[in-house]
Amino acid sequence: MRVRAELIPRPGLRFPDVVLVVDVIRATTTAVAFLEAGAREVWFAPDHETALALKPKGFAVAGESQGLKPPGFDFGNGPLEALAAQVAGRPVVMSTTNGTRAAHLAARSARRLALASLWNRAAAAAWAAREAQVEIAFLAAGKEGGFGLDDTYAIGAALDALTGEPEDGALAALAVFRGYPAEVALTRSKAAQALKEVGLAEDVRAVLDLDRSRLVPVLDRREGPYLVFTRSAL
Amino acid sequence: MRVRAELIPRPGLRFPDVVLVVDVIRATTTAVAFLEAGAREVWFAPDHETALALKPKGFAVAGESQGLKPPGFDFGNGPLEALAAQVAGRPVVMSTTNGTRAAHLAARSARRLALASLWNRAAAAAWAAREAQVEIAFLAAGKEGGFGLDDTYAIGAALDALTGEPEDGALAALAVFRGYPAEVALTRSKAAQALKEVGLAEDVRAVLDLDRSRLVPVLDRREGPYLVFTRSAL
Repeated sequence: MRVRAELIPRPGLRFPDVVLVVDVIRATTTAVAFLEAGAREVWFAPDHETALALKPKGFAVAGESQGLKPPGFDFGNGPLEALAAQVAGRPVVMSTTNGTRAAHLAARSARRLALASLWNRAAAAAWAAREAQVEIAFLAAGKEGGFGLDDTYAIGAALDALTGEPEDGALAALAVFRGYPAEVALTRSKAAQALKEVGLAEDVRAVLDLDRSRLVPVLDRREGPYLVFTRSAL
Repeated sequence: MRVRAELIPRPGLRFPDVVLVVDVIRATTTAVAFLEAGAREVWFAPDHETALALKPKGFAVAGESQGLKPPGFDFGNGPLEALAAQVAGRPVVMSTTNGTRAAHLAARSARRLALASLWNRAAAAAWAAREAQVEIAFLAAGKEGGFGLDDTYAIGAALDALTGEPEDGALAALAVFRGYPAEVALTRSKAAQALKEVGLAEDVRAVLDLDRSRLVPVLDRREGPYLVFTRSAL
């Protein structure tokens, strides 16, 4: 099995088979948390306006701009907040700066798509190994179009739970995972520093909880501009 | 001092201060080799046609398409070939797929620009430390717009010879440098595999020769569409 990691999102990327999108600080961690809280589905919107359009239809609306909950949203982009949210049986729609956008980029070509974080690292790796035919790919959401040490570390953690033939990006992610303690890789990242600046350092500690969830948000279908994730049957 | 590594070239990148461009397999190694062979200057052309335009003016023309010497060129893109080339006192113009293009990208904004490889790792790091005011940045040429383990390793090697505050990309490059032996990082890279396929595996071994040169090709000036590199006065 070919194992590939794209460490920076860019428009021309193509994913022929399975792709795991990683935005560990925080969108893909928070999507797992909403499913843990009992959300029926998690929808990724392409932008805030499109997310808010679902509010009258009974959706909980979650996301961030510059780290913080945007006006009119029910929730921010925090995994602890999501875990405690009263969303059992309800659908949630999310719109964030990096993670939901990266998922839309991957969805343009992927045959199978799911969301991975440290919380569901082993479960996501097992799902990918089960589903893949020729390639397991990771797409890091990164930080505003650039490289993120946090996502690269989380990809390395998932790769460490997989077998296969890693190419350049995957080998680099493994080196990051093996080279730094989780706390160092995540707290030194630009993403963590930006959260700290808006008073959300607690969320960085929260995303570190390796393998706390067995749930994998898997792309089930599209509804217009939305990507609809349901929990995997793993 | 801020220490930054851009591991994939992309159009929007800006470099406010010092930038070292790295295409270890092979353009920035070969540029050092031409200076070692006595070339008076090394010019980087934006494309092959622009490179060939200098041939009637006494330039040696070097470069590659898909790893091999293009029609009409005097030399390929190999460091051993460059080292043995009869170019003493002459100018050389180069055009390659990744390295010369990355240098043109960096030159759009950089205050000071030089070329780094494993051959001149310590010398390039010392030059950057001397010249930088607020930031030392590295730009990896990568492989056709993507991430290259080889360039990331070489950047890590140079970072290991510097002090400063590394951000996300620089921390990842350090992990790659510390996590893999040079032979592993370079021979497993896509760039090395592509060279092997065209019969140039010897060049991969050649670029590994850490700190064999004290020469740093430094951007001296522009001449129309060309970047003109001279050896540093270090």
